[in-house]
Amino acid sequence: MLAPKKVVLAYSGGLDTSIILKWLQTEYGCEVVTFTADLGQGEELEPARKKAEMMGVSEIFIEDLREEFVRDFVFPMFRANALYEGQYLLGTSIARPLISKRLVEIAAETGADAVAHGATGKGNDQVRFELAAYALDPEIKVIAPWRIWDLSSRTKLLEFAEAHQIPVAKDKRGEAPFSVDANLLHTSSEGKVLEDPAVDAPDYVYQRTVNPEDAPNEAQYVEIGFSRGDAVSIDGEALSPAEVLTKLNELGGKHGIGRLDLVEGRFVGMKSRGIYETPGGTILLEAHRGIESITLDRGAMHLKDELMPRYAELVYNGFWFSPEREMLQAAIDHSQAMVSGTVRVKLYKGLARTVGRWSENSLYSEAHVTFEDDAGAYDQKDAAGFIQLNALRLKLLAARAKRNR
Amino acid sequence: MLAPKKVVLAYSGGLDTSIILKWLQTEYGCEVVTFTADLGQGEELEPARKKAEMMGVSEIFIEDLREEFVRDFVFPMFRANALYEGQYLLGTSIARPLISKRLVEIAAETGADAVAHGATGKGNDQVRFELAAYALDPEIKVIAPWRIWDLSSRTKLLEFAEAHQIPVAKDKRGEAPFSVDANLLHTSSEGKVLEDPAVDAPDYVYQRTVNPEDAPNEAQYVEIGFSRGDAVSIDGEALSPAEVLTKLNELGGKHGIGRLDLVEGRFVGMKSRGIYETPGGTILLEAHRGIESITLDRGAMHLKDELMPRYAELVYNGFWFSPEREMLQAAIDHSQAMVSGTVRVKLYKGLARTVGRWSENSLYSEAHVTFEDDAGAYDQKDAAGFIQLNALRLKLLAARAKRNR
Amino acid sequence: MLAPKKVVLAYSGGLDTSIILKWLQTEYGCEVVTFTADLGQGEELEPARKKAEMMGVSEIFIEDLREEFVRDFVFPMFRANALYEGQYLLGTSIARPLISKRLVEIAAETGADAVAHGATGKGNDQVRFELAAYALDPEIKVIAPWRIWDLSSRTKLLEFAEAHQIPVAKDKRGEAPFSVDANLLHTSSEGKVLEDPAVDAPDYVYQRTVNPEDAPNEAQYVEIGFSRGDAVSIDGEALSPAEVLTKLNELGGKHGIGRLDLVEGRFVGMKSRGIYETPGGTILLEAHRGIESITLDRGAMHLKDELMPRYAELVYNGFWFSPEREMLQAAIDHSQAMVSGTVRVKLYKGLARTVGRWSENSLYSEAHVTFEDDAGAYDQKDAAGFIQLNALRLKLLAARAKRNR
Amino acid sequence: MLAPKKVVLAYSGGLDTSIILKWLQTEYGCEVVTFTADLGQGEELEPARKKAEMMGVSEIFIEDLREEFVRDFVFPMFRANALYEGQYLLGTSIARPLISKRLVEIAAETGADAVAHGATGKGNDQVRFELAAYALDPEIKVIAPWRIWDLSSRTKLLEFAEAHQIPVAKDKRGEAPFSVDANLLHTSSEGKVLEDPAVDAPDYVYQRTVNPEDAPNEAQYVEIGFSRGDAVSIDGEALSPAEVLTKLNELGGKHGIGRLDLVEGRFVGMKSRGIYETPGGTILLEAHRGIESITLDRGAMHLKDELMPRYAELVYNGFWFSPEREMLQAAIDHSQAMVSGTVRVKLYKGLARTVGRWSENSLYSEAHVTFEDDAGAYDQKDAAGFIQLNALRLKLLAARAKRNR
Repeated sequence: MLAPKKVVLAYSGGLDTSIILKWLQTEYGCEVVTFTADLGQGEELEPARKKAEMMGVSEIFIEDLREEFVRDFVFPMFRANALYEGQYLLGTSIARPLISKRLVEIAAETGADAVAHGATGKGNDQVRFELAAYALDPEIKVIAPWRIWDLSSRTKLLEFAEAHQIPVAKDKRGEAPFSVDANLLHTSSEGKVLEDPAVDAPDYVYQRTVNPEDAPNEAQYVEIGFSRGDAVSIDGEALSPAEVLTKLNELGGKHGIGRLDLVEGRFVGMKSRGIYETPGGTILLEAHRGIESITLDRGAMHLKDELMPRYAELVYNGFWFSPEREMLQAAIDHSQAMVSGTVRVKLYKGLARTVGRWSENSLYSEAHVTFEDDAGAYDQKDAAGFIQLNALRLKLLAARAKRNR
Repeated sequence: MLAPKKVVLAYSGGLDTSIILKWLQTEYGCEVVTFTADLGQGEELEPARKKAEMMGVSEIFIEDLREEFVRDFVFPMFRANALYEGQYLLGTSIARPLISKRLVEIAAETGADAVAHGATGKGNDQVRFELAAYALDPEIKVIAPWRIWDLSSRTKLLEFAEAHQIPVAKDKRGEAPFSVDANLLHTSSEGKVLEDPAVDAPDYVYQRTVNPEDAPNEAQYVEIGFSRGDAVSIDGEALSPAEVLTKLNELGGKHGIGRLDLVEGRFVGMKSRGIYETPGGTILLEAHRGIESITLDRGAMHLKDELMPRYAELVYNGFWFSPEREMLQAAIDHSQAMVSGTVRVKLYKGLARTVGRWSENSLYSEAHVTFEDDAGAYDQKDAAGFIQLNALRLKLLAARAKRNR
Repeated sequence: MLAPKKVVLAYSGGLDTSIILKWLQTEYGCEVVTFTADLGQGEELEPARKKAEMMGVSEIFIEDLREEFVRDFVFPMFRANALYEGQYLLGTSIARPLISKRLVEIAAETGADAVAHGATGKGNDQVRFELAAYALDPEIKVIAPWRIWDLSSRTKLLEFAEAHQIPVAKDKRGEAPFSVDANLLHTSSEGKVLEDPAVDAPDYVYQRTVNPEDAPNEAQYVEIGFSRGDAVSIDGEALSPAEVLTKLNELGGKHGIGRLDLVEGRFVGMKSRGIYETPGGTILLEAHRGIESITLDRGAMHLKDELMPRYAELVYNGFWFSPEREMLQAAIDHSQAMVSGTVRVKLYKGLARTVGRWSENSLYSEAHVTFEDDAGAYDQKDAAGFIQLNALRLKLLAARAKRNR
Repeated sequence: MLAPKKVVLAYSGGLDTSIILKWLQTEYGCEVVTFTADLGQGEELEPARKKAEMMGVSEIFIEDLREEFVRDFVFPMFRANALYEGQYLLGTSIARPLISKRLVEIAAETGADAVAHGATGKGNDQVRFELAAYALDPEIKVIAPWRIWDLSSRTKLLEFAEAHQIPVAKDKRGEAPFSVDANLLHTSSEGKVLEDPAVDAPDYVYQRTVNPEDAPNEAQYVEIGFSRGDAVSIDGEALSPAEVLTKLNELGGKHGIGRLDLVEGRFVGMKSRGIYETPGGTILLEAHRGIESITLDRGAMHLKDELMPRYAELVYNGFWFSPEREMLQAAIDHSQAMVSGTVRVKLYKGLARTVGRWSENSLYSEAHVTFEDDAGAYDQKDAAGFIQLNALRLKLLAARAKRNR
């Protein structure tokens, strides 16, 4: 790869990406554009501007992407009820393609020939960033300094920082006891004190949810309104996508909902252990399942359930911008046209549980299901024929087995 | 269908199956053999013997099938992590094939030409009973009185009972406010007061789990040992399959774990609402996922996850004894050879959450995943090639899109 | 079911549906509307009008549906490369939903409360007709005389015909040696002389294709143009959907292409043996695969291949108008946006084989694949990292196996 | 990677692997063990021994693996009816894991720490060789000289050969017009004159099958006997696995059967064009489908069909020795217990077509399917109930649509 001339860097303003910024400038002598996005990670962005300016960056992009993030990435994914390996709500995975998309767009706007990110060579995020970037611009260069430089220890990083006048906050001098990623959907923590999967995660790791033991002793009920598969209101109040998720995070966090301690299989081949907190997302998944349960046909639901693990794998592995994810999305979105209505969820000490659901589009027919007289809606005698023909091939098999005995 | 000569009836000893017993005798003038199984439903079985004797039955089968139920049906299903429509642990579905199997076997032993069950014409259970029976004996007759007789109201049933000297307990004179099925895996409740899915289930419906609000204020930790995919010990004590499930039910029930309020799609085509309590099963699923997370390869796990919805659908629809369920089981069982080890689960107010797991078969490699120096276990530079070749087809797509613009 | 007042009958003009027509009139004393469609079966339709008039029918619908059939049913199905049980091109299955759709529409137009068809109670077609009808009008009655009447033998049918002055062609007096269904996509033959699957189908069964031994000794080449997944031209000449299929049938028939002798699993539970001739469809499938091979991304193609058997099963079983078929279609159609270009197929003595393909949308990159110097398009060293990370989990498994030995 | 001390080389005796042999000796100064396998490629192996000896190799392994190849690799794959991208019979893919297995075993026997192969960095074979090797021995080194050395042109290769006294056959001086791989299952040709997928493959590319135009004018019929899914006899004569395939190759080759001109998606991300000749395999697939059609239950068959594309992808991508391929194999093998019987196939001018099949395990029931009186085997009235309950959810959907209009 030829040295880049101008690089757009995904810049958080933190120590690591500040070092990367400086390293790009010194290593390649190239111009660096910074891009800092508010995805709901709950950090001030303006300090990032100051730091970038201090390091001589003249093109600084700071953007609030929360609505786009929830509307175009989180919500489509929740339409799929996506769970990776049965449990993980994909909070980190789903944010990466949006960041890459903006990196590539800003590169086009600013005439940059490369983008750069701060993900390491062991994780999934490098893959997600880079696959998304290449899918959007086949000629873009992607620079992953962690795979290139030799700043392989904390000491070397701090030496580099000092040598280049990068300010190091006191609490960053020592090593963090674990590593964190956060956005509006979740907070994930991993590494260091979490590396032994036999040992409980210490309580201080959790940042966004109270310990269920410390949650209110009273349950709280919330009514979530859906339109075409997406949450659009809470307790009757219409809200934007990001507002919905923010509100659900608040509720979930307060009730200790959405903690997950998981060992998962990374795309790069190893297993890793993560602590995830997805308070709002956990409620949202439960409620989405709830509204689907009365508005989605069985055939559609079962097909969705069968496609879901593949969908989740694609998102996890970084193939958001791939034809196959888009094909699955087309199928899933097609199923959601009637998924509108309201779900009542009980929140209590770590648990979010659907306890009621109603919709003008409901397929639930009391007339059919009732234990009482159904006025001819359903003829029980039909069941005999239904069973006979479903059984026919099994009978033929049994007859063969008997014959062969 | 010619009238049966001798029928084996799945007999609970309750009012409904007592009426069926009598009805079979009077309708067909045939001999009836009763079969009453202890599947862990928590009811005395001996009264069933007395009642059957009173009605002139001379061949009475009363059997404790709890170990067989858990070992040969529940555990194989849990190896699959089976969830129907994303949430239901299939507690009723999994019991039916075992009952049918014994009915058919007893028919062979006693020279009966038919079996009979007390499931109605609207539900899934009739299908499960009958598909299993036909799959095991292609010539057996299956009699489903609810689809045949005209005892279509409570009044008519009671009149029939009175006319035939069938004793009716006082509390059975009125209609039950809902209908219940129970076994060692779960209790399900449906119908009547539960028929409006918008309305919360009244608290008195729950029978096997305390309300989470009433559960202990202290969390409890339990360590579940697995061998080849099955739970074999609790807190270090080796237990038989039925003992494991009994113990987990006790723990789960005490902590309010495993309540589910679900609207589901029945195989016969309508949606119905059920309240399920699966305390032990809920803990078991969480723990099984936990032990798989460190002992099961990613490729195997993802394939299992993709096959699971189909597996669950087959069990739900009554195709336990079908070649396709057995094929899936063969695949799943093959994956479990190394799924041994221990999982630590936290139980608290309705929630069962894995917080630790360890195994001699662990695939988790701290050497590979560590944030520290990995001593060459993993070469981060490999990731560059990995990403480049995964990206190649996406780049070719992007190049085409660019070209076509 | 209450007796129908007015019935729309799928009427071919042949003996069987003429008997049905009369039977409906006499059995229910109801008005009958006839609907006769040209789906390319190659029969005159006007005689059907005369016969219907003779039997006192006043509302007679005769329609040429060939374009709609190919455009809205055959082509969408071919986008999926649908093969049932690996071999059957679904020629009968795909025609039924269109006929039902028009029956239901005509019922609405003419104020009829029922529709009727001439399929028997053993086959798949009854299911296809009726599922489609109910999916389009939940209150429509569907009458399947073959499942109701007692005209269970050829003799009884002929007696009924005579008793009601229905003219019987001389060659219909005896029983046909097999039963035939035909439309623009295929001809199927089954029953009677074909009932022993061990015995070769006699040559006179084949009606639409010459015996390969009698096909031309010279191969013929045809170039099929595609646009967005559908065939739009042959040898450079733009053609409508029905014209394309007609032309391909001509070519395929002449070269003995598209014969299939199959035992298949019916939805109603038994296996049956059919002889299918799908000359144009066989060429079309080959060509569609050919154009996809250069224009469809691997990820999309593999997903399509995995979804295909389910799609084919849905079409075969009669679930064309179901949410899950539509979901799959949405996914498949999404994949076809770039599937345009030309395929060159060699036709010779029963075989249609792609021998060339080209497209402006081609993803085939000679620059990448070449054995010659690729000017840096592909860095072979990337493969090392690609392999290492794909191997990582396998190595961890192997290390465990070694450890455990 | 540290330099290897002793390497087992997959050695064909040809120019390229001779150069690799020498290069390993000179580059690493290491001992080289050669392994030459007869997989049915149709070449003399003894010349390889002489050449190896000439180059100073003292440990020379020459083995006839044809039976193992067919029995343990080809046949299990054919039980799955595996086709990659709908058409490719995986002839090259299936041979690689066996070669790797022997390389790794020989390394263990001879105390070698590395294995080496002659596959280039652009193809799938490098992946297949290496994934298999790592899955069998996590510590083995795999050397792929084509990805390492700088002998990147024909000229350089020949210079190297000359410089090291490697004899170069006259016809190898120029470049081959295409590249070939062969074994008992197939011959594949690619590259050079085949690189433009729009242009027909020249006739001289085909090596193992006659041009259909040159095939006999008389059709030939062959009867293939199966036992548990594997072919075990031809025309009544019991044969070993390799003998079966050899015989079918002979028959297929003579009749011009099994030619495929395909553009396929490689695992490394690009599309390539190959000419495949799989005469025996093409007949075998057709016949296996034929015997399954009467002996395999519909549920089992449809599940197999849905799993097949994934299975084929795994084999193609080199994951033969992976838990997920083994899981699928367990499911597939389970289905084959009754797949025994005989299939009659017509061979004529490129086409192999099943025209008859019979088995003691047949599930085909003339009693059920007959157009004649079935003596009560099947009650057509059952179909009404079967359809009603299959339609119920569609009716509920249609009622909703009507309501919402």
